[in-house]
Amino acid sequence: MKKLINDPQDVVVETLEGFALAHADLVQVHTDPAYVTRTGGAVPGKVGLVSGGGSGHEPLHAGFVGVGMLDAAVPGAVFTSPTPDQIAPAIAAADGGAGVLTIVKNYTGDVLNFETAAELAEVEGITVRQVLVNDDVAVEDSLYTAGRRGVAGTVAVEKIAGAAAERGDDLDAVAALARRVVDNVRSMGLALTACTVPHVGRPSFDLGDDEIEIGIGIHGEPGRHRVGLEPADALTEKLLTPVVEDLGLTGGEQVLLLVNGMGGTPASELYVVYRRARALLAERGIEVTRSLVGNYVTSLEMQGASVTVLRLDDELTALWDAPVHTAALRW
Amino acid sequence: MKKLINDPQDVVVETLEGFALAHADLVQVHTDPAYVTRTGGAVPGKVGLVSGGGSGHEPLHAGFVGVGMLDAAVPGAVFTSPTPDQIAPAIAAADGGAGVLTIVKNYTGDVLNFETAAELAEVEGITVRQVLVNDDVAVEDSLYTAGRRGVAGTVAVEKIAGAAAERGDDLDAVAALARRVVDNVRSMGLALTACTVPHVGRPSFDLGDDEIEIGIGIHGEPGRHRVGLEPADALTEKLLTPVVEDLGLTGGEQVLLLVNGMGGTPASELYVVYRRARALLAERGIEVTRSLVGNYVTSLEMQGASVTVLRLDDELTALWDAPVHTAALRW
Repeated sequence: MKKLINDPQDVVVETLEGFALAHADLVQVHTDPAYVTRTGGAVPGKVGLVSGGGSGHEPLHAGFVGVGMLDAAVPGAVFTSPTPDQIAPAIAAADGGAGVLTIVKNYTGDVLNFETAAELAEVEGITVRQVLVNDDVAVEDSLYTAGRRGVAGTVAVEKIAGAAAERGDDLDAVAALARRVVDNVRSMGLALTACTVPHVGRPSFDLGDDEIEIGIGIHGEPGRHRVGLEPADALTEKLLTPVVEDLGLTGGEQVLLLVNGMGGTPASELYVVYRRARALLAERGIEVTRSLVGNYVTSLEMQGASVTVLRLDDELTALWDAPVHTAALRW
Repeated sequence: MKKLINDPQDVVVETLEGFALAHADLVQVHTDPAYVTRTGGAVPGKVGLVSGGGSGHEPLHAGFVGVGMLDAAVPGAVFTSPTPDQIAPAIAAADGGAGVLTIVKNYTGDVLNFETAAELAEVEGITVRQVLVNDDVAVEDSLYTAGRRGVAGTVAVEKIAGAAAERGDDLDAVAALARRVVDNVRSMGLALTACTVPHVGRPSFDLGDDEIEIGIGIHGEPGRHRVGLEPADALTEKLLTPVVEDLGLTGGEQVLLLVNGMGGTPASELYVVYRRARALLAERGIEVTRSLVGNYVTSLEMQGASVTVLRLDDELTALWDAPVHTAALRW
């Protein structure tokens, strides 16, 4: 296993140490238990936003802590849910008196642990709502989920809910907006290569030199099927078509298009995929009015990409455009 | 060769097509010959900034076109210098009447072709100055250079010269500032894996499963030596020490620290390296006042990282902090 790490057991802590040093203007990293909050702490009167999950998907979630997005993020071990005793203090730290919304990717461990943490927080008098993200159209149930998995659509949920909280929406309104994003966002990904979890030390799955996994999850869990080597244009169509059809998009609609790298993919390849996705959407009369291309929800060093489409309306567009200042998203 | 591409000959053009679609608010992509300019064209009275080089290092250089940084970027074929007939129209497009500074990484082909293009532009009445970036301390001469190579320090040169041009400095002043950055910035990188140039179809070099190349160039050209697998902390020291010593940094100085990914490296590993580089600089009494961590000057899907240090003073710091709005750098 070749990685720029020290002891595999220390990867998450050392990553957080570096992250805290590099972004001291934006975040504060807490250890024992580990969670990340905005510098300055909870904003009085603002709904708090907390997300989290296994590490290895950076910049998700700590990279999205800051003004206009999350108040706190809770990183578990690599590809492992954070524990309730990590999540509960993060919820408490994010509460400015207006309650807290947790944004949880739909994996069984995450869902259980965030629910337990919410119960702990409510005992302390904090009102908590939870929104599950399940945008991955690849598989209905999976290795780690009942129902669909949550993947790169999470970025849109966190951004738009974050903007709603920032403008002063109350907890029910922020939760309703987050659910509106969940209802209107879908994703699908593929992998060219597997990734290696540091404390495991070998690739999470085997993929032949002439095989591509279509519908891959962000932990390397199986997708829909494998195909041989195909041009990017054909592969992009295999991702985009199920996304568009599941959303029921029709001509004249406006969307956000996110082409997300899995961590080890060159930017050039993401733009090649983006270009083809744009052409396919144009053929259907669907207008891309907002775009994002880059590594946002990754799987360590995996080579591959996912395509995410969010159906936009004027309000979602305005919230997407609202100012954001985090390590990974800023405008 | 597993890549998200179509015909290897079309990678650069298709990447530019996707880039143009994704960032239509920022850039305009010209084809035949290929170059990228700011939307809106040259700014009257402002010094124009042009850079370029082989493709495969994205987001360099097109990702740095926009307000506060470059006016135009010229992408060659992958790892191949752009031609004078690409560069000359880019210089012309960037000229707002105050002359043009070209920022050129020190590779023999780039230097020659930018000089030829400058001569062509001067025949058209455009005043051109050129600054060579040669920040790589790993080797004195290399496969493609006489003298040191230009690597990730280029980002600092483009950012700071861009801010100087934006505030209205004249051509000589912008060129002098760019040279001041060159004089005060050094870098060194390592590779865990090789990368594969699309139209070649096989890795650029062989690196064993238990080997790491120290002092790698951004085209996979050889560095100083190979080592076995070592912890990130030890590897980081091997990069940082030559950088600090070549710069002659002493206690009490302030620096910008850039930890750059080579394209296939997870963000978590870059933060592990950043963390150790911070500690090593702190031990020497050197204060890191500005930071950048991410993929800025890459080598396709290569796994690895480089460490760049820029000695700061008040003026360089202010110019670094000045607003920038490009695809890859924005604040």
